[in-house]
Amino acid sequence: MSEADAAPRRGRRRKGAGDARAAILKAASAEFLANGYDDTSLRAIARRAEVDPALVHHYFDDKAALFAESLEAPVRPQDIVELALAGPRDMIGETVARAVLEALDAPANRNRMRQLVRTALGHDFAARMLRQFMVREVLQRIAKAIDAPDAEFRATLAASQIVGLLVVRAGIQAEPLASAPIEDVVARVGPVIQWHLTGYGTVDSVGGAGE
Amino acid sequence: MSEADAAPRRGRRRKGAGDARAAILKAASAEFLANGYDDTSLRAIARRAEVDPALVHHYFDDKAALFAESLEAPVRPQDIVELALAGPRDMIGETVARAVLEALDAPANRNRMRQLVRTALGHDFAARMLRQFMVREVLQRIAKAIDAPDAEFRATLAASQIVGLLVVRAGIQAEPLASAPIEDVVARVGPVIQWHLTGYGTVDSVGGAGE
Repeated sequence: MSEADAAPRRGRRRKGAGDARAAILKAASAEFLANGYDDTSLRAIARRAEVDPALVHHYFDDKAALFAESLEAPVRPQDIVELALAGPRDMIGETVARAVLEALDAPANRNRMRQLVRTALGHDFAARMLRQFMVREVLQRIAKAIDAPDAEFRATLAASQIVGLLVVRAGIQAEPLASAPIEDVVARVGPVIQWHLTGYGTVDSVGGAGE
Repeated sequence: MSEADAAPRRGRRRKGAGDARAAILKAASAEFLANGYDDTSLRAIARRAEVDPALVHHYFDDKAALFAESLEAPVRPQDIVELALAGPRDMIGETVARAVLEALDAPANRNRMRQLVRTALGHDFAARMLRQFMVREVLQRIAKAIDAPDAEFRATLAASQIVGLLVVRAGIQAEPLASAPIEDVVARVGPVIQWHLTGYGTVDSVGGAGE
């Protein structure tokens, strides 16, 4: 008889604290992805995670909090900020565009981002999340780090190009943008993000970007 | 006794063909706006329009068709194309940006556009609508009229900036972009649409756009 078999049956449902929390997050991510925010219940998440529904309530305040945490995966805001600020200043737009496009390449991330934007258009908490994560934690920090004038305005302008890219490439999938090679899109969108963030940047030839 | 009073009671519910169709469209627009696409039923639309539910089915194939027609109002694609092509070529980006921003100024249009993008992220038919209306009927026609290379790619790139502007300004309402004066936003977004559409355009000073 193996050790696993020796464990009491009900022990299967009693995961360790860290395990249970992680299992709930993983299940939440899968449920939100499959059914969208509105049609996902905490009960269904508990079922998929194989935990008692009370545990979900124990670890997460409510569905909104769980949604926010479950979305965290695709790109860490801090990573994009560090990447953008590590390179030359006139490459910031390209770097951010490439990071977003590479993250979007994985189908699961595509769906996750689409769900996030969709939910944000119908629910204040998700709109707040997009504002906090994308605008404040990423773009505004970059704009402030490079001393851009009107850093807050610029951060929201850059967000408009990035969110639109998500919607058109991964959401409504308008061709040819939906399946264009990443570098072709970086060449067109990078200079725009550069221009929005820094307020300078000459966009004077196809794909060319510089000061 | 007036003529109106003389009409049979049930006559109130029997509108003329054009009247009934218009009443259904108006009711549909109000219901979709109030409750979103998913939570709007044809029955509720018929009730608001004060017509028999069978009439709704008589005039419109299904909910998707009704949704498409009810959204038509805010901006006529043809108007934007004509406006953009009537002015100087290096002002096309500004003209399109201004038309979009002015249309967004009315709260009803804001909500309508938000609902459209939201629905497009969850339903293929609405995604197709956005691709057809915004990309093909507006941006692609402009790009082709000015002989832009890669007109189709450029149209989807311009759409990404415009859709993102809708989402960030009217959808998640990130400040300061959400309430910035129209001309401040035109100065930042106009050159981007110009760059996306025409492939040239020098963006070299705050708000400056030219060849």
